[in-house]
Amino acid sequence: MSKTVKIVRFHKTGPAEVLEFDELPLPEPGASEVRISVKALGLNRAEVMFRNGQYLETPVLPAKNGYEAAGVIDAVGEGVDSSWVGKTVSTVPGTFKLSNHGVYGEVAVVPLKAIAEYPASLSYEEGASIWMQYLTAYGALIWLAKISKGDFVIITAASSSVGIAAIEMAKVEGAISIAVTRTAAKKNQLLKLGADHVIVTDEEDLAARVNEITSGKGARVVFDPIGGPILESLAAATAYHGIVLEYGALAAEATPYPLFTALSKGLTVRAYTLFELTADAVFSKAKQYVCEHLASRAFRPLIDKTFPFAEIVAAHRYMESNAQVGKIVVTL
Amino acid sequence: MSKTVKIVRFHKTGPAEVLEFDELPLPEPGASEVRISVKALGLNRAEVMFRNGQYLETPVLPAKNGYEAAGVIDAVGEGVDSSWVGKTVSTVPGTFKLSNHGVYGEVAVVPLKAIAEYPASLSYEEGASIWMQYLTAYGALIWLAKISKGDFVIITAASSSVGIAAIEMAKVEGAISIAVTRTAAKKNQLLKLGADHVIVTDEEDLAARVNEITSGKGARVVFDPIGGPILESLAAATAYHGIVLEYGALAAEATPYPLFTALSKGLTVRAYTLFELTADAVFSKAKQYVCEHLASRAFRPLIDKTFPFAEIVAAHRYMESNAQVGKIVVTL
Repeated sequence: MSKTVKIVRFHKTGPAEVLEFDELPLPEPGASEVRISVKALGLNRAEVMFRNGQYLETPVLPAKNGYEAAGVIDAVGEGVDSSWVGKTVSTVPGTFKLSNHGVYGEVAVVPLKAIAEYPASLSYEEGASIWMQYLTAYGALIWLAKISKGDFVIITAASSSVGIAAIEMAKVEGAISIAVTRTAAKKNQLLKLGADHVIVTDEEDLAARVNEITSGKGARVVFDPIGGPILESLAAATAYHGIVLEYGALAAEATPYPLFTALSKGLTVRAYTLFELTADAVFSKAKQYVCEHLASRAFRPLIDKTFPFAEIVAAHRYMESNAQVGKIVVTL
Repeated sequence: MSKTVKIVRFHKTGPAEVLEFDELPLPEPGASEVRISVKALGLNRAEVMFRNGQYLETPVLPAKNGYEAAGVIDAVGEGVDSSWVGKTVSTVPGTFKLSNHGVYGEVAVVPLKAIAEYPASLSYEEGASIWMQYLTAYGALIWLAKISKGDFVIITAASSSVGIAAIEMAKVEGAISIAVTRTAAKKNQLLKLGADHVIVTDEEDLAARVNEITSGKGARVVFDPIGGPILESLAAATAYHGIVLEYGALAAEATPYPLFTALSKGLTVRAYTLFELTADAVFSKAKQYVCEHLASRAFRPLIDKTFPFAEIVAAHRYMESNAQVGKIVVTL
């Protein structure tokens, strides 16, 4: 009798409860693939959207899910050096399809190019909380927007793991972060995490406050995963020749393009996903940058809450509550 | 008794009829200004929008109007070399405010930096039909989008003077133009003017046709002065990592930002106006590029119709009819 393992899949799209623990034969890595014995999973908003059938990738049912796992390689496929076995690695989003390589499970089989080593000082939980947040921020802020000393950077959904990574990255680069959050609940924590300014949109006018903070110039860079009506306020808060990086679609509403504001400022609105970075030559440089700043502790993956593997449905529900500050992690 | 001259101004915003011939004392050029005896005026859509109170610049009433005049300098102000007197020049949009320096009149007083000489082979009518169209296209296609050999370039409002200039510029740079026009009426003329492809949006699906023309790749560059709902079709017709240059706001409707399409393609939407180019160091290079291609006849300003000065109201009405292909010129 061959061994079986638990793999999380969904057989239809929908709420968190569609995630099921399927008992499947232990999968063998194919050519250029590795198998990871999973120790921790970092959850991402993209995976909630994928589960709902609202993501850039359309699920092929039954679909796996999950971009970020940390663990130990326990088998390699054809063409992969066997010295990888026993190494601690984590998986890099944007390098594989969720439907067939999603990492929610006791083991995960992914392409060799999807794995990366990380500093040994980090726990598995931290190891599963690196790549989505720091590479997404790197691609937008450093690769595309080329932030530098003195730049004002507006960061919406600031208490998300990517938001916090952007706050840390702005600090490292000498830029000034303006964190945007809906309610006052997370304001103090964002300041403690290093945000230079925090704007609470339920209580303050975004554009007016940015105007104050930047002495009327506006912010050169905006980093936004929300879209929808907030784009108008963000454009109003952007400097002449500024750039708005849209990297998600969390808003339920349509996104109006502020044409007149954009014309008067020569504004760039650049939609961006991590897939672009991982497909580009800059990818290895980006990974090195992240590892260096993890090693120096300039970047500290913040874990909000951990759930045991058996409670992954509750972990998804918790993500949808928007109560977290930082990463939600599932442990095995 | 001092001499008076006719200057066109509007004392309230509204339809073409608000343009009035005000009999004013002959204006003297101030410091760093020149006075032009106007021979021809090139009309622009911006001036219709300004007259309607719908332009980026808000009119200060009573407001002058008009960006492009060709004529002969007949007086210079303090600090301007008197050798300019007698020279044939035309005025460059984006270098002055319409309210106080608008050039509709028997004479126009503009800053020295607003004038440029042009090849002597051109008539006054052609001289008044250069800068808005070729510099606008240069800034978008060459400065920002860096078009080169083999690039597909979608050009909407293709029969406008800027659209035709873009068709000519794409050809000079070895790019492939896809001209977009609403009805079949102007299709043959656009092909004769050098458009490599013409899409008639009343009869054809824009994205499907671009898909065909580009073998499924989409166009790398889109050059659009319309905005509004067409942005969704244009985004659908754009290549991965393509750029949409929005340089106007002709649509009456709001402009939806196609967030999902943009994310899936890493799309850039860049709003752009000529003001950016004229304020940049590239301005003199751009003027030189235009003059060289005018001299070689690679660029041939196309004049649709001329009106006498007394009929400038009719000329504005004609522009609003959208019947023209190329420039509408008023002669004095």
